[in-house]
Amino acid sequence: MATEVARRASSLAGWLDGERDRIVDELLDWLRVPSISAQPEHATDVRASAELCAAHLRDAGLEHVEVIDTAGHPSVYADWLHAGAAAPTILVYGHHDVQPVDPIDQWRQPPFDPVIVDGECKARGAIDDKGQMLYHIEAVRGLLATEGAVPVNLKCLVEGEEEIGSPNFEALLTERSEQLACDAVVVSDTGMLGPDTPSTDVAMRGLVAFRLTVTTSTTDLHSGLFGGAVPNPIHHLSDVVAALHDEQHRVALAGFYDDVVPLSDVEQRSLDAEPFDPDEFRRVTGVRRLEGEAGRSTPERIGARPTCDVTGFVGGYTGEGVKTIVPATASCIVTFRLVPDQRPDRIAELFEAWVHDRVPEGIDVEVERHGGVAPLRTPVDHWAFGALYRAIETVWGKPPLLTRVGGSGPEETLARVLDAPVLYLGVMLPDDRIHAPNERMVMSQFWNGLLAAGELWHELRVAAPQ
Amino acid sequence: MATEVARRASSLAGWLDGERDRIVDELLDWLRVPSISAQPEHATDVRASAELCAAHLRDAGLEHVEVIDTAGHPSVYADWLHAGAAAPTILVYGHHDVQPVDPIDQWRQPPFDPVIVDGECKARGAIDDKGQMLYHIEAVRGLLATEGAVPVNLKCLVEGEEEIGSPNFEALLTERSEQLACDAVVVSDTGMLGPDTPSTDVAMRGLVAFRLTVTTSTTDLHSGLFGGAVPNPIHHLSDVVAALHDEQHRVALAGFYDDVVPLSDVEQRSLDAEPFDPDEFRRVTGVRRLEGEAGRSTPERIGARPTCDVTGFVGGYTGEGVKTIVPATASCIVTFRLVPDQRPDRIAELFEAWVHDRVPEGIDVEVERHGGVAPLRTPVDHWAFGALYRAIETVWGKPPLLTRVGGSGPEETLARVLDAPVLYLGVMLPDDRIHAPNERMVMSQFWNGLLAAGELWHELRVAAPQ
Repeated sequence: MATEVARRASSLAGWLDGERDRIVDELLDWLRVPSISAQPEHATDVRASAELCAAHLRDAGLEHVEVIDTAGHPSVYADWLHAGAAAPTILVYGHHDVQPVDPIDQWRQPPFDPVIVDGECKARGAIDDKGQMLYHIEAVRGLLATEGAVPVNLKCLVEGEEEIGSPNFEALLTERSEQLACDAVVVSDTGMLGPDTPSTDVAMRGLVAFRLTVTTSTTDLHSGLFGGAVPNPIHHLSDVVAALHDEQHRVALAGFYDDVVPLSDVEQRSLDAEPFDPDEFRRVTGVRRLEGEAGRSTPERIGARPTCDVTGFVGGYTGEGVKTIVPATASCIVTFRLVPDQRPDRIAELFEAWVHDRVPEGIDVEVERHGGVAPLRTPVDHWAFGALYRAIETVWGKPPLLTRVGGSGPEETLARVLDAPVLYLGVMLPDDRIHAPNERMVMSQFWNGLLAAGELWHELRVAAPQ
Repeated sequence: MATEVARRASSLAGWLDGERDRIVDELLDWLRVPSISAQPEHATDVRASAELCAAHLRDAGLEHVEVIDTAGHPSVYADWLHAGAAAPTILVYGHHDVQPVDPIDQWRQPPFDPVIVDGECKARGAIDDKGQMLYHIEAVRGLLATEGAVPVNLKCLVEGEEEIGSPNFEALLTERSEQLACDAVVVSDTGMLGPDTPSTDVAMRGLVAFRLTVTTSTTDLHSGLFGGAVPNPIHHLSDVVAALHDEQHRVALAGFYDDVVPLSDVEQRSLDAEPFDPDEFRRVTGVRRLEGEAGRSTPERIGARPTCDVTGFVGGYTGEGVKTIVPATASCIVTFRLVPDQRPDRIAELFEAWVHDRVPEGIDVEVERHGGVAPLRTPVDHWAFGALYRAIETVWGKPPLLTRVGGSGPEETLARVLDAPVLYLGVMLPDDRIHAPNERMVMSQFWNGLLAAGELWHELRVAAPQ
């Protein structure tokens, strides 16, 4: 088995030796396009990036290449479907839009004038996410050149609005669900713990949010004439916020943790093995105090545990100076990050009942729900996950650790609409400064990503049930 | 004694019979001037009001009449100083500016088109405070006409910025402290419990405010990537706000109540005798729930007890929708209403220490003090207070109850800068709708106020130490 794996890896590796300069040129060309989706003045650049991506796909040998118009910025689709009915169908997801570049004066070279220095590619979008998409495209080209075929039926979907929250993505998936149907999704927009500590994500947190509004009167009141005899909505809302967590920094809603699935042994071992430098974490976040659920490490608090944060609070007079009122109303946004198998609907039920219990009779409290994204879990016992695990082990020389992502992205939409497991093959490193000045991609990770893509498709072909 | 009092009262009362129509005309003329100090477009009206007030004073027989320019709207000064060195010198304070009239569509007649209907004068400024100032001026005219003299050396100061917080008043008092020197100040800008329940104020609450700012990071953080492992300033500030009061709704700062002087028996009896209609209070305030310090009545909570209200709170994202951040900072304004003999400086010490004790190491908290007004107490054992007490008893036929004012006005500045006791002769009734649509003055209260002014000056002359 080990020999066979080595042979497959080296087929792409040998081809690569003669292609590196060309691939780097293609990478730098794409990175020169300032496809900032958040800034309307860059709309034509986002389109140019989509067109260039389409050209790469076509040139690499993919078919049915299409720039897909949406209500916002365009996505790109392409496929290669000649692996036969016995081979699985895999959808690779990435995005071609990038983050804004402010603060521009902190860049050491212009963000859209990419360079390769000391084995690093420095540019906005290098690792997030053009580089990660390009290695998939080039792996197709390499396999077609060396083996004449890709081992799986491959579909590529490259989004143009990931950095602005994917506002039109679910509509696109729903509309084209037949065209995009697949046995597994490979997301190429995440990272690993280190170049010598390969890892893959197995869960992504969900999110549900509420606007809480406490109203005590029909009008603001003079605090001298009425203060002390009428309820103050800021006090009552603060009571609610203060009660969200107990002394152990656990979320205090009864039943909140009931549906949390404990980490598997391998996940716990992975978490424990994660390198974590508190000083570096303080530097990155700008906080002096680390604080969270008692008995849990920082990596566990961020990725593996559900949390509650009030993200905004406003009530009364908030301008300069002091206005002596008892305000009529105060409101805040309470957000919950959820982990498998918590469900937004269940948390909403618990929260609404809990809030109404805490606010006394005669005071109005409104709980308005904002959306809800279920947590996403990669089924580690799925045949496709085993394939990913082996592909990473082959290329990086070590089995991957299993990690969890704290945030919530379009992955949940992919899994839900396409009804397929989501695998994460990502080569980003913790120091790659995504969304910040001086974003970079470590080129050895990029080349390994290319090899791993080829490995993964072979492994998927082998692992898929016949 | 009773006979003598009756004689003095009737001397003005007899004169009044032939003067009522003229006095009403003068009142209505003054009320037609829209002297709204808060609205720059009414600046010329405020000045016109000052000029008209000056004309009233001059015409009534007062001297040294002067419209005093300030950095804002003008005040008016006048005096009559011929009572002799043996007579006390009394300063009457009132104001000629008025509140804005919004919401204008709720007025049953135009606010500056005053009318007398069913024994009530309906107009903006009728009772707050032009009517209350005018009865003092007309009392001077009446005494000069019937007795040829005023029993005391009288000074009048009519402010033009009371409704906007008297921003230039302390400077005026300080600059003219010699000219304004007096043995007692009579403030004519307050009220009594009812036409058949005469009362006078004997204390006014003080005020000290703080802006509290909690900062946990140098930047807002992504709640998915960092939430649950970093401190949230909204949570910590809510903890502080929630801890300001205990379960009994008492202010929870240790030592907060140490300097509170218990009510005297007569004050307590007055409070207990105050008519209080909870339904009416709910209607006026728009609250459904009455809430405050345990074991205290609503009138006591408002006037006689110190209180704490957070008047504004802001942190994080407060726009539409949800932004998934852990904010870097949150702030609020904490205000304390103080009663005799609490001191703003002492409360500031207690509060700052208390706050710093409550916020954990590694989180920054800033406590920025905003001003401070000491509570004001009328010395009820002062000879001047006895004179006021008897004057009210003579005119209303009952001894006045002793009440306390919940708010804080320029009275503390008057007492402090002029170093004189402050007496309250006010005829406003609880239903007079000051600062609201359909302000009114009950004319019987106005006429009684005029008689009471004359009584008061006689009583002060008799009571003053020789």
